[in-house]
Amino acid sequence: MRTPSVLPPTHLVRDVFFVSDSTGITAETLGRALLANFPGANFRQHTVPFIDTLDGARAVAHDVRKARVDGCKPIVFATVKSAHILAEFNASGAMVIDLLGGHLRELEAVLGTTASDQLGQFHAVGDIELYFARMRAVEYAIEHDDGQSMRALDIADVIIIAPSRCGKTPTTMYLALQYGLLVANYPLTDDDFPSDGLPSTVATYASKCFGLTTTPLRLSQVRHERRPNSTYSSLAQCTLELRRAEDLYRRNRVPFLNSSTKSVEEMSAVIIQSMRLRS
Amino acid sequence: MRTPSVLPPTHLVRDVFFVSDSTGITAETLGRALLANFPGANFRQHTVPFIDTLDGARAVAHDVRKARVDGCKPIVFATVKSAHILAEFNASGAMVIDLLGGHLRELEAVLGTTASDQLGQFHAVGDIELYFARMRAVEYAIEHDDGQSMRALDIADVIIIAPSRCGKTPTTMYLALQYGLLVANYPLTDDDFPSDGLPSTVATYASKCFGLTTTPLRLSQVRHERRPNSTYSSLAQCTLELRRAEDLYRRNRVPFLNSSTKSVEEMSAVIIQSMRLRS
Repeated sequence: MRTPSVLPPTHLVRDVFFVSDSTGITAETLGRALLANFPGANFRQHTVPFIDTLDGARAVAHDVRKARVDGCKPIVFATVKSAHILAEFNASGAMVIDLLGGHLRELEAVLGTTASDQLGQFHAVGDIELYFARMRAVEYAIEHDDGQSMRALDIADVIIIAPSRCGKTPTTMYLALQYGLLVANYPLTDDDFPSDGLPSTVATYASKCFGLTTTPLRLSQVRHERRPNSTYSSLAQCTLELRRAEDLYRRNRVPFLNSSTKSVEEMSAVIIQSMRLRS
Repeated sequence: MRTPSVLPPTHLVRDVFFVSDSTGITAETLGRALLANFPGANFRQHTVPFIDTLDGARAVAHDVRKARVDGCKPIVFATVKSAHILAEFNASGAMVIDLLGGHLRELEAVLGTTASDQLGQFHAVGDIELYFARMRAVEYAIEHDDGQSMRALDIADVIIIAPSRCGKTPTTMYLALQYGLLVANYPLTDDDFPSDGLPSTVATYASKCFGLTTTPLRLSQVRHERRPNSTYSSLAQCTLELRRAEDLYRRNRVPFLNSSTKSVEEMSAVIIQSMRLRS
């Protein structure tokens, strides 16, 4: 355990640049994960993708110099492979955090070879097979959203079941886009609760089912956003539906998770792990 | 420029573990981007999320030890904050690449404070506003996929237009999920080409339009996947439709990009930059 230190005054805003020679997604994701460890600080964030020339690098360095006020050194999170581009950032007076370079040297050491000099190989791969898989998965997800189609459920990797507004749709879409999985989702409504079994449409595929639940308060908030002051969004109705859904999951041995404190990314990772969808 | 070195024999398969105390997405994304620089090597990849206890760490270390064969040291890409967990990986004989620790120390130095000890703060934030934004965006994308609805186009952040199978749907969904943007997409068909202007349904929102194109060969491949040996998938038809679409974009000053060598992530980043959708 480290002892918490005194935080600097929070009115100081520090500029942070996520700069990449590709999309900037990795720089932004890892950079934000790192910054989240300093909740007392105030950051103004800028994402700058596709910086793969010296001219581009100099334009970024210019913006960094302008941002350097109040003695607050800007921070540059960089995923660029060119040492010349990095040198421009270093010369701008920013604190440059090189998210690739050091790790590439570590890899070179263990692999006994040097990194190739091609830029942005990872995202640039126009791999047509991967592209087909994602496209098929997204189209499958759209077709099977909210129980709209029961066609080809036999090829689903997972069927997400839950009462309305528990997070089925965004989680379905994330699993499709990020992992290329075939995901259907099916809403549990009052009609589904008279019996003890799963809804007949998905009962055949019980082993593919994964349930979502949440807290009544959270569900009420989310439903209120769609239909304010309705029975649908009332705390009593939400409490009842969630209790019935959880009973249904337990009786039918359907694994489930509570979405109330989880991001879409976390729910997706839990579902993949629980359903053993990747080796 | 570094000189390429002699590559080790490629039949050796090296095990790589992406280990995280959260979802593993960052470890996997950055780890893969780093590995892509060593195209001569053979990696067998494993993603292990939610390792936030010593017991979990020991189970991973056990798998790492088992994977250490043929003198091929396994590689562990780690995004875990606990030094005790990292120590278990180090003791397993793997090459451990710590994607967080070193950078946290760099940040502590420039910020003059210590990182807080809470785990997985970034993805764990159940931020209801962000959640609403993503959910709304995904639902908007589903409603407006392939020109299905013209409702509320005035609130769209961007309207993607293109002939069938140029990548509208996955790109739309990625922009919605990753960035919470409201994205509609509209197919350009033969009916849209007799006139010089944009299709009447989207003409009012010309400034929100972004076009996609691709190469005739690629389009023919992708269409063949859906309808083999049809006029629709013929090279002649694909060539014609793409030429007309590009003419339409140029005449109406609609920015556009060629999707044939780009990933969904790259297309999204280009669209965001070109349409200035983020500050």
